[in-house]
Amino acid sequence: MSMTQHEVRRGAYYDSIVLMQLQKALAELEGVLDAGVVMATPANRDVLDAAGFAVEAIDARPDDLLIMVKAESEGAASAALAQVDELLKRRQGSGDMTYRPASLDAAARQLPHARWTLISVPGRYAAAVARQALALNTHVFLYSDNVSLEDEIDLKRRARDAGLLVMGPDCGTAIINGVGLGFANRVRRGGIGIVAASGTGLQAVSSGVHNLGGGVSQAFGTGGRDLKADVGGLSALQALDLLRRDPATEVIVLVSKPPAPSVATRLLRAARECEKLVIVNLLGYAPPARRTDTLHFALNLHDAAELAVTLQAETRPEKPAPGREVSGYVRGLFSGGTLAYEALLGLQPFLAPLYSNAPVTPEQKLVDSFASQAHTILDLGEDQFTQGRLHPMMDNDLRLRRLRTEAGDAAVGTLLLDVVLGEGAHPDPAGELAPALAEAKAARPELDVVVVVVGTDADPQVLDEQAAQFTHAGAHVYPTVTDAVRHIVRRLPRESAALAHPLSLDDFGSDLAAINVGLESFHASLIEQGAQSIQVDWRPPAGGNERLAGILARLG
Amino acid sequence: MSMTQHEVRRGAYYDSIVLMQLQKALAELEGVLDAGVVMATPANRDVLDAAGFAVEAIDARPDDLLIMVKAESEGAASAALAQVDELLKRRQGSGDMTYRPASLDAAARQLPHARWTLISVPGRYAAAVARQALALNTHVFLYSDNVSLEDEIDLKRRARDAGLLVMGPDCGTAIINGVGLGFANRVRRGGIGIVAASGTGLQAVSSGVHNLGGGVSQAFGTGGRDLKADVGGLSALQALDLLRRDPATEVIVLVSKPPAPSVATRLLRAARECEKLVIVNLLGYAPPARRTDTLHFALNLHDAAELAVTLQAETRPEKPAPGREVSGYVRGLFSGGTLAYEALLGLQPFLAPLYSNAPVTPEQKLVDSFASQAHTILDLGEDQFTQGRLHPMMDNDLRLRRLRTEAGDAAVGTLLLDVVLGEGAHPDPAGELAPALAEAKAARPELDVVVVVVGTDADPQVLDEQAAQFTHAGAHVYPTVTDAVRHIVRRLPRESAALAHPLSLDDFGSDLAAINVGLESFHASLIEQGAQSIQVDWRPPAGGNERLAGILARLG
Repeated sequence: MSMTQHEVRRGAYYDSIVLMQLQKALAELEGVLDAGVVMATPANRDVLDAAGFAVEAIDARPDDLLIMVKAESEGAASAALAQVDELLKRRQGSGDMTYRPASLDAAARQLPHARWTLISVPGRYAAAVARQALALNTHVFLYSDNVSLEDEIDLKRRARDAGLLVMGPDCGTAIINGVGLGFANRVRRGGIGIVAASGTGLQAVSSGVHNLGGGVSQAFGTGGRDLKADVGGLSALQALDLLRRDPATEVIVLVSKPPAPSVATRLLRAARECEKLVIVNLLGYAPPARRTDTLHFALNLHDAAELAVTLQAETRPEKPAPGREVSGYVRGLFSGGTLAYEALLGLQPFLAPLYSNAPVTPEQKLVDSFASQAHTILDLGEDQFTQGRLHPMMDNDLRLRRLRTEAGDAAVGTLLLDVVLGEGAHPDPAGELAPALAEAKAARPELDVVVVVVGTDADPQVLDEQAAQFTHAGAHVYPTVTDAVRHIVRRLPRESAALAHPLSLDDFGSDLAAINVGLESFHASLIEQGAQSIQVDWRPPAGGNERLAGILARLG
Repeated sequence: MSMTQHEVRRGAYYDSIVLMQLQKALAELEGVLDAGVVMATPANRDVLDAAGFAVEAIDARPDDLLIMVKAESEGAASAALAQVDELLKRRQGSGDMTYRPASLDAAARQLPHARWTLISVPGRYAAAVARQALALNTHVFLYSDNVSLEDEIDLKRRARDAGLLVMGPDCGTAIINGVGLGFANRVRRGGIGIVAASGTGLQAVSSGVHNLGGGVSQAFGTGGRDLKADVGGLSALQALDLLRRDPATEVIVLVSKPPAPSVATRLLRAARECEKLVIVNLLGYAPPARRTDTLHFALNLHDAAELAVTLQAETRPEKPAPGREVSGYVRGLFSGGTLAYEALLGLQPFLAPLYSNAPVTPEQKLVDSFASQAHTILDLGEDQFTQGRLHPMMDNDLRLRRLRTEAGDAAVGTLLLDVVLGEGAHPDPAGELAPALAEAKAARPELDVVVVVVGTDADPQVLDEQAAQFTHAGAHVYPTVTDAVRHIVRRLPRESAALAHPLSLDDFGSDLAAINVGLESFHASLIEQGAQSIQVDWRPPAGGNERLAGILARLG
């Protein structure tokens, strides 16, 4: 038989470490079976409920502290609760006795060359603290979670316009100038830079790099929401730009969960501008190839680490060939559905907007199959085109008509076709298609024409002769869609990647000085690693009493 | 100045090759600028419209033949239309004069050992013809598209219950006993079997295999809809089962666009039962690793061909270790969000149903984060768990409680945990977690416990000592999620893959005899390849007049 007692402290703020330690101390008291010490949020009430505490009837709000004790007897439970103040006092006395500034301003005066502020206060206070940190001209490592998307966007825009970086909210980890911020593995320094919208992604890759003998130049967490469409990858783009310019970084690893498609395109194009090799692992995002231009696609976190170390070790990593740049839209006219699909998958990281009558994502859906929009990949073998009509592998009429339309469109820069040979197919597709392509090239020599020819040397059409006809017509001929996609991506114009307010390289070298607001363990870790850190003795406005804080805010 | 004239033939049926040839013949006549000869479907009217023919006002239904001629003068246009019957007759006279059976029954009597029927009649007639072919106990290669999903399901179920195979509808290609059906490249015979819910996917892979020096045993198209949830991969499962038993097949390639998740799981589990190496390329589906158990994941079609040839060439491909089988649910308790996500991605091809509080797909969403369902991967670092509470990398309390709950659930077979070391993290996570795991193992020795430890030899917790504590507690310790997933998948029970009515191996050897209904070019191609084929002189019911066909159907 067990007895449970509880106590609610209204609007009380305690550091979560204090709460954890109080819970442990209570649970260790004589006669106590279990204890729970939590801010009374719905999730925390569920945790207590799952642990067998009867919480349902307890009147407590999310900003109230709820202390519950399950004990062998009524007496033991009361005795435990009676010790709460004593236990809290004991804990507070255990900290070091150094003077601690009570505000960010004071901390900044004490450590004027601090370029970083680490913030791990509860989410509802975090954005205000981060704004102060930016006003003090420091970069921000924002560990706190439960921060609104609006605040994130506001903070990141402020930072960008000031040439500052905000990592987070909900950024668990970074390695800056060899010093781990938040959760971070101890890794050797080296030539591999990391940008990760994924905390444990960064940790797994940096650990993997170290364990494989490599080292890390800088590793930036961005917070998991950075690659959402609303945020637009602001932090990731700044970090990529820094690593691009950083002479200590030789190869770059880019890790995240699947980003919004529009952000993925922007990010991968920026990665391509780097002119350094970039290893990309967007988890859950199907890589179109092992490599496209300077981008190497990894299958998982360990694969990313391995690729980074291997590529960095190559004495002279292959740089992109300068080559001709091709402007204008890409229009693909396919007879093979799967080949069209493979082209879409291969091009969608780089081309936006991209449309198709057989789209991969709903937003790619072409409104009218008879009118291309922007970049378009058409599958001319779709059911709608083949009712009472031969398949385009047998009858080139439909494709020839469309080809002439596309070639005549001045906005088109590249024509992409597949030609599938073999039994059952047209006896001489090149005989009909190549002259039309030659005509198009004659009218517009700048047009890039790419043809994928699928077949074997045993096929009735004779593979080599078909390919030769296309080459003669001025087309680039490849045996696979993957090769054709690589050709097209290599020729995409490289836009200037320069940001209006780039991060200063001066902040990224060998030393780190930071202001820490929130979890003391982060401060201790910085000191332990030989960095400079100053802990702010932060308290929430009005001691955490939200009603009082509201009144104060209205007054002031 | 050009003049256009047209003619509509009500409810007239013509083979699409005839239509193509008539259009070409008209376009080549003196004074004719362009011609269009199509069944008047909406899409075909759009094609004519895009080609500059004024079709809008023309009264014609989808089963009417529409003939349009654009000419230099009214006279030339009329003259062209006047020749239509003559041109059609000339075409019909050009066929060979062999006797042709007018029905499938007659054809089957003429070629009684025919095991295959190829069907390429217009979609609205195709299902009825296929039912006849199944009734004659032949496998069906169903090229026709525009066949309803209901018909597809009905045909495939009939076939399955009779030990017969239906490839298609909309199946463009197959290679059976060395003979290409429909569109097919000429490739060497060899030890690589292919199953493809993707026509050009099959062609690209079989061509790639040949061009790399390999050869194909059997290659099955299934039609693109076979892997939709409603169809459930019926044909793909039959084909996989055949290749599993076929002594001539050494490795298997499985290609498709991304299947319905439920079908993907069933198919990949079946692929794993094969105990042959299976190369998987589900286009657009992110491969979790280069390899999991006997499955090798390819990035694109060419990669699939290359892997198949390479693996087949290995003198002794690595067979799965027998190993212990672990039954029961997998429950993952993660502190790292990205690691949880990677585990989900890695396990979802094999475990269903699979749930998470941080799901990859909406159907994986866990109803209540505090109650696991079936296979469950939990991210305990999600925002809801960290309000006013330390992150689970720092505070093990929440995870320890949940771990005891899961271990006590008799339906659970495997516990999966991550432990992330480094700065900022708990100073000795194994010190708290390993005893709880040891306790769980003591109570239920059959429980499989898998721990991923992420860290470096420089981390403050000392990687090796942490790992040793977990090993000592009876856990399997791995450095990456990919390794842990591989461990779990290897131990999944292998269910019997036997079908109730398997395809007979007798039909898959060196000869092929087929009945062809529809496109004559397919018949010609079979003969050309040395196979036996008989062309049915097929006509639609009531000569293609739908109203009349309806009346006849009601009468008969």
